[in-house]
Amino acid sequence: MKMNIAVAQSGGPTAAINASLAGVFRQASENDSIGRIYGSVNGIEGMINDDLVPLDSILTSDHDIELLKKTPSTVLGSCRYKLAAYDPDDSVTETEYMNIVNTLEKHDIGAFFYIGGNDSMDTVMKLDRYLKAVGKDIKVIGIPKTIDNDLPGTDHTPGFGSAAKYVATTLQEIIRDSRVYSIQSITIVEIMGRNAGWLTASSCVLRANGEPAPHLIYVPEAYPDGFPIEKFLSDVEGMMKRYRAVIVAVSEGIVPDAREYKKTGADAFGHTDNSGVAKFLEKCCADRFGCKVRSIELNVMQRCSSHIASATDIEESERVGRAAVDAALAGDSGRMMGFRRISNEPYRVEIISNDVATTANRERFLPENWICNEKSDITMDALGYFLPLIQGEVNPEYRNGIPIHFRLNQ
Amino acid sequence: MKMNIAVAQSGGPTAAINASLAGVFRQASENDSIGRIYGSVNGIEGMINDDLVPLDSILTSDHDIELLKKTPSTVLGSCRYKLAAYDPDDSVTETEYMNIVNTLEKHDIGAFFYIGGNDSMDTVMKLDRYLKAVGKDIKVIGIPKTIDNDLPGTDHTPGFGSAAKYVATTLQEIIRDSRVYSIQSITIVEIMGRNAGWLTASSCVLRANGEPAPHLIYVPEAYPDGFPIEKFLSDVEGMMKRYRAVIVAVSEGIVPDAREYKKTGADAFGHTDNSGVAKFLEKCCADRFGCKVRSIELNVMQRCSSHIASATDIEESERVGRAAVDAALAGDSGRMMGFRRISNEPYRVEIISNDVATTANRERFLPENWICNEKSDITMDALGYFLPLIQGEVNPEYRNGIPIHFRLNQ
Repeated sequence: MKMNIAVAQSGGPTAAINASLAGVFRQASENDSIGRIYGSVNGIEGMINDDLVPLDSILTSDHDIELLKKTPSTVLGSCRYKLAAYDPDDSVTETEYMNIVNTLEKHDIGAFFYIGGNDSMDTVMKLDRYLKAVGKDIKVIGIPKTIDNDLPGTDHTPGFGSAAKYVATTLQEIIRDSRVYSIQSITIVEIMGRNAGWLTASSCVLRANGEPAPHLIYVPEAYPDGFPIEKFLSDVEGMMKRYRAVIVAVSEGIVPDAREYKKTGADAFGHTDNSGVAKFLEKCCADRFGCKVRSIELNVMQRCSSHIASATDIEESERVGRAAVDAALAGDSGRMMGFRRISNEPYRVEIISNDVATTANRERFLPENWICNEKSDITMDALGYFLPLIQGEVNPEYRNGIPIHFRLNQ
Repeated sequence: MKMNIAVAQSGGPTAAINASLAGVFRQASENDSIGRIYGSVNGIEGMINDDLVPLDSILTSDHDIELLKKTPSTVLGSCRYKLAAYDPDDSVTETEYMNIVNTLEKHDIGAFFYIGGNDSMDTVMKLDRYLKAVGKDIKVIGIPKTIDNDLPGTDHTPGFGSAAKYVATTLQEIIRDSRVYSIQSITIVEIMGRNAGWLTASSCVLRANGEPAPHLIYVPEAYPDGFPIEKFLSDVEGMMKRYRAVIVAVSEGIVPDAREYKKTGADAFGHTDNSGVAKFLEKCCADRFGCKVRSIELNVMQRCSSHIASATDIEESERVGRAAVDAALAGDSGRMMGFRRISNEPYRVEIISNDVATTANRERFLPENWICNEKSDITMDALGYFLPLIQGEVNPEYRNGIPIHFRLNQ
């Protein structure tokens, strides 16, 4: 008898998470031992509420799948839902786990694939442990995804390369834009990454093409005790002596040590997260230097700009989705797929898997020795790591001059 | 004897202004009656200060020119400098005009081409009048450029189509991003355009591909007496009943009628311009509805994202640059080049020119009948106008996974 499978997507959108879905779908479709392929709507919520869609009757052609790979965000929806640890004495958590099992059994699902980040791997771990504890032979496999690149157990994460390619491409355009006038200017670009500065650090790839900007790169790993505004202003002043248009890349997770920061930088805008640091630094520079200062948030565009996705990232994301299916068929469960880098030049990776407990709820940070001594730049060592991940282009398909996306409900 | 020419770029950057420079350069290079081709650095400032670069020894291959066409912003630099009206009794203005004439005569320049917007056309007009008044036979021709599309005397402006293609592409990705969670959300996207809402209105092109969002589109032309916040909140509330993820496109020139606007929406951030309206509307929505609300500024990316430029825009920008050279050779001066639309389907335009006085310091607004009665949307009539302008893609050339730009000082 054939086994059915289910796949879900979770956490923040990326340009590559649908490519991993495509990988799971393709590998499962090509395997005779797998029957129906279900998509769970809004991550684990779909499993709890029995809200599944039959992917095999939605993705009906190779063209559909290719379009899906070029569509950003999560076609099945997402969630931020975190399963409580299983507690047989707590009827709420017990009902939740039982609902998932009911969904799994009702649809004869023998393997569940969860594409997501740190929190999602927590779900994979908990669900796998529960299923083992109650003696159900259902495999649970995690497929990594995050533009933050902060998952332990993998060389890099699907979605990161595309975000890095967007950041490099857009930063270079911002650099061109900032240089037009004959006056002194400062441009501060805020890049995603709350605790880990991978994406901000990746802006150093522009140096491979001889571009000295961004002249200053600030990552949260360098400032665990707060970001000293006076040092920042002194760094900027130093660069102003060398460059008419100073470009600063700053991670959203940088927390200025200024007393006024919380008031004017974040809470005043109704933000509960860290976003807003560039705006705060803009104000600091304008007050100190009185020149033209601009701040730019790359906002959600850096995680969903599939039109400038990295082909390497999209292809790897599909491959890791395919490998997840193989892992489940080989009897694995409670594991997260990942990459091990064999070499930078030529770029070679192999697909691996690790116990999901090594990833769940944990973060991976920039190597300390990639942060230069002045804590305002990334060393050239990082270049060899970042560059392979942004190679290649995914050419969108256009209709009426606009890229076509795959949509579940047309 | 051969005549030399000079060309300069002015005003805000676009993805197409270098394509017009390429057009001037190519047409002049191919004409035997033209000798040297100079670029004036930082717009008219280069003419005043005799700061010229010999373009014919910088753009040395067809590949250079093709790269230039794919490079955003102004390769020659720009300025916001406005010539004072000529006054023979004022030694300062007289010196300025005389400096320009000295530069022109020193380099045997018989024609000057100025690529820019409303303010730049004022410079073209004043310089042409001065040269005629003092009996100098030097031609001055304006080449339009602005993402705002607000110049009278032309069907549309070079640079607008590329900005509109970026806005449509990016908005569609933001729409995908906003729909992932199962909760109600509001996303407010701020688009450039202080007095004219062309670029914001162009977001309606997504409807050609069956996309209902943005659900609300607000342009400044609809609200000459201020933007009523209560009506806005009521519009949003109406859309929330129909859509889980409401998308609002708002022109930066919209001025809320709320008393608190100036305080928290603009000045508190150190802005002297209108930018910040989306952030203000975000706060209003969060206060009223208590759901997830996000604001996004497309910022300078919408004017410099050459990697997603419109091929139609880039080709037309080059053509209009070429035509400017022909116009000067035919004896024209004090004129701005432009387009007249012959038909939408098939899209056909012809290149025309008008007395620059019809454009200088004047603005062109959205046709009133394109704004729907509720003042929160654009009618389908606008689609036929906008769609041809975003057609076709300019494929960037990549090195190390990053688009290559042409740089004057490599």
